[in-house]
Amino acid sequence: MTRKLTDRIIGMMEDVRSRKPLVHHITNYVTVNDCANIVLAIGASPIMADDIDEVETITSISSALVINIGTLNRRTIESMVAAGKKANELGIPVVLDPVGAGASSLRNQTTQRILDQVKITVLRGNMSEIRFTAGLEADTKGVEVSEADQNIGADEGSKVAQDVARKFGCVVAITGPTDIITDGDRTIYIENGTKHMSNITGTGCMCSSLVGAFCGVLDGKSDGPLVAAAGGVLVTGLSGEIAYEATKHLGYGSFRTGIIDTVSKLDADTLIEKARIYGS
Amino acid sequence: MTRKLTDRIIGMMEDVRSRKPLVHHITNYVTVNDCANIVLAIGASPIMADDIDEVETITSISSALVINIGTLNRRTIESMVAAGKKANELGIPVVLDPVGAGASSLRNQTTQRILDQVKITVLRGNMSEIRFTAGLEADTKGVEVSEADQNIGADEGSKVAQDVARKFGCVVAITGPTDIITDGDRTIYIENGTKHMSNITGTGCMCSSLVGAFCGVLDGKSDGPLVAAAGGVLVTGLSGEIAYEATKHLGYGSFRTGIIDTVSKLDADTLIEKARIYGS
Amino acid sequence: MTRKLTDRIIGMMEDVRSRKPLVHHITNYVTVNDCANIVLAIGASPIMADDIDEVETITSISSALVINIGTLNRRTIESMVAAGKKANELGIPVVLDPVGAGASSLRNQTTQRILDQVKITVLRGNMSEIRFTAGLEADTKGVEVSEADQNIGADEGSKVAQDVARKFGCVVAITGPTDIITDGDRTIYIENGTKHMSNITGTGCMCSSLVGAFCGVLDGKSDGPLVAAAGGVLVTGLSGEIAYEATKHLGYGSFRTGIIDTVSKLDADTLIEKARIYGS
Repeated sequence: MTRKLTDRIIGMMEDVRSRKPLVHHITNYVTVNDCANIVLAIGASPIMADDIDEVETITSISSALVINIGTLNRRTIESMVAAGKKANELGIPVVLDPVGAGASSLRNQTTQRILDQVKITVLRGNMSEIRFTAGLEADTKGVEVSEADQNIGADEGSKVAQDVARKFGCVVAITGPTDIITDGDRTIYIENGTKHMSNITGTGCMCSSLVGAFCGVLDGKSDGPLVAAAGGVLVTGLSGEIAYEATKHLGYGSFRTGIIDTVSKLDADTLIEKARIYGS
Repeated sequence: MTRKLTDRIIGMMEDVRSRKPLVHHITNYVTVNDCANIVLAIGASPIMADDIDEVETITSISSALVINIGTLNRRTIESMVAAGKKANELGIPVVLDPVGAGASSLRNQTTQRILDQVKITVLRGNMSEIRFTAGLEADTKGVEVSEADQNIGADEGSKVAQDVARKFGCVVAITGPTDIITDGDRTIYIENGTKHMSNITGTGCMCSSLVGAFCGVLDGKSDGPLVAAAGGVLVTGLSGEIAYEATKHLGYGSFRTGIIDTVSKLDADTLIEKARIYGS
Repeated sequence: MTRKLTDRIIGMMEDVRSRKPLVHHITNYVTVNDCANIVLAIGASPIMADDIDEVETITSISSALVINIGTLNRRTIESMVAAGKKANELGIPVVLDPVGAGASSLRNQTTQRILDQVKITVLRGNMSEIRFTAGLEADTKGVEVSEADQNIGADEGSKVAQDVARKFGCVVAITGPTDIITDGDRTIYIENGTKHMSNITGTGCMCSSLVGAFCGVLDGKSDGPLVAAAGGVLVTGLSGEIAYEATKHLGYGSFRTGIIDTVSKLDADTLIEKARIYGS
């Protein structure tokens, strides 16, 4: 199974590189540069645009939309909803990263509102954020996963992910020590990555952006979004792991640079050799 | 001719380093950090300020203004126009980077409005963006040049650039495989750079910021803006080329860092040795 | 005295690493990524949130608030004041970085307003910015210190710092060739750092963010804020100095990366060996 999944992901990655899908981002100003560079590194084309007067047009010419609420505000929330609705209308996949859901009413209500008004293709977050969307008591500390939520086992975590996936009819990707990706039916587990990725900002956001790039080349197969989500998560974890080994003697500044380096050099052989991906 | 132009550019670069001109930016939040760092690397001083309540004051104390519409919004569009008018009033040079012109009505109308209401010193963009300002059918795909526009030859490209330069009475710089810089009369061609520069975000924006830094030391000669534009474009292309050779075994994260490294180390000898600059 | 101070700072740094305080930032979009990464590198946890609808909540769950007016606007100014008041109400320390105070009425009035309405724990800036808050004629050039102000000696500088500290009942940290940190009574001097730090954007902002991280572990001792401010300034200067030596053959892009690398690797032995910290 693993090899079959890896092959599907490699195929999509090659499609990203040959088709260079445009990925519209409405995202935060903290990690936006990393998101743009990681999307370019995998071979896609990013466009960041958040004004209500143009988001629908920009979504219309794009192959995927990534909504990231990291530094949401009244102005951009309206743009997120408008772009999301336009994407739905045109059948363009939408990735939602509910950064910090659980940390403030504004983030909670916005996450809820987007999930209510926009059909999401892939919802990606940490365990605290996804638990919040499940209606569970999420023990959030800012934009990072809480320690309690981090230590939830793969079994309980899978159940949360599957419940949310069924509730919203979307693929759910929870990234953590073991990444869990599910459409409510099939569930994929990925064990690449390193805990040091939480010591630089943007690894979660970059993961969502990579999922967006993979979603930009969906081929109509019913499990396309599941494989696309797994692809984005796998590339992130694998690149984080490789980059950490290459830069750990230097420090976290170089680690950040190394992740973009690694994504830009990633090839099929490395994926086949190093992917620790399991599932039905 | 080449050597004479290169010498003029070297002279201006030395002026930038000794006079450290303040360059006011109203720019996008994706590449703003790169713009600030590249301006510092060449020896000038950046200030980013976009609130309508201060842009006129900040422009007044600056030696050049760079307007970049990369992530424009209703609030900042007004600031761009107000700052531009103030710069005109005080004889401060204005660089316009119409990022993504052609991609949305908002970008089109804003570009048009700025060109109508503000006298621009240097207009810098890719072929799609400049073709749009020429009133030609631009085949834009997001913020990147389209493949069709990219493949327009230097002859046809020069005609577009010259027409736009005459239309707006400004210097036009089209960056691409061959960079074209013209005031409508004289035309300069630069063949430095590498296509890999489009694989990291911000190389276009950094180019406009470097043009801004050079415009901050204009000496009153009538061809000053032409040489300043050529200077910014040459430094960008040359640094991109050198940095790519130095980092290509690592990847695009290091390439980005390497461009700023290279600009900060650039000296007259390297310019003389490596500049591939031609023109009347 | 030096060793005792260094030991206190080392103790706080260990507390930051073990307690991982959440540091709420309302900051500029130029250097926000560097601020987030430097806070993570020292072992704390950053959260950037600026919408009026959530800033009070986010401050409430944080251990420190950093207000940086680098790219202030009408919307975020209100958020800064609201978050500051909430922090005061809850006894959460507040760091203010009045970027560019003196350069525009908007920056002047905002700095004044925040100092009037919010009790600041640590005010950190360059000599021009702090002189402005003292009501002295500050000779500001944009966001950088003026040459005249840069050359003010440690004696006169100390007097300025002490006056401001007494006026606002806060700790004042002026960073420059010799850093001056005072609560109006005791004054600490730090001579680490390198002038090259002004050739990359964000070193001032990162310093304020590090002060915020140290303020996130105050232990109730009356001189806690003084030592926290000294800690943030010392870590910044020392890391800048070490990173510059390690990267000077490469350039300023690598220097920026190197600062974050160095902070992430900083240990007690290095602090003991290299800190040049003096004072009562």
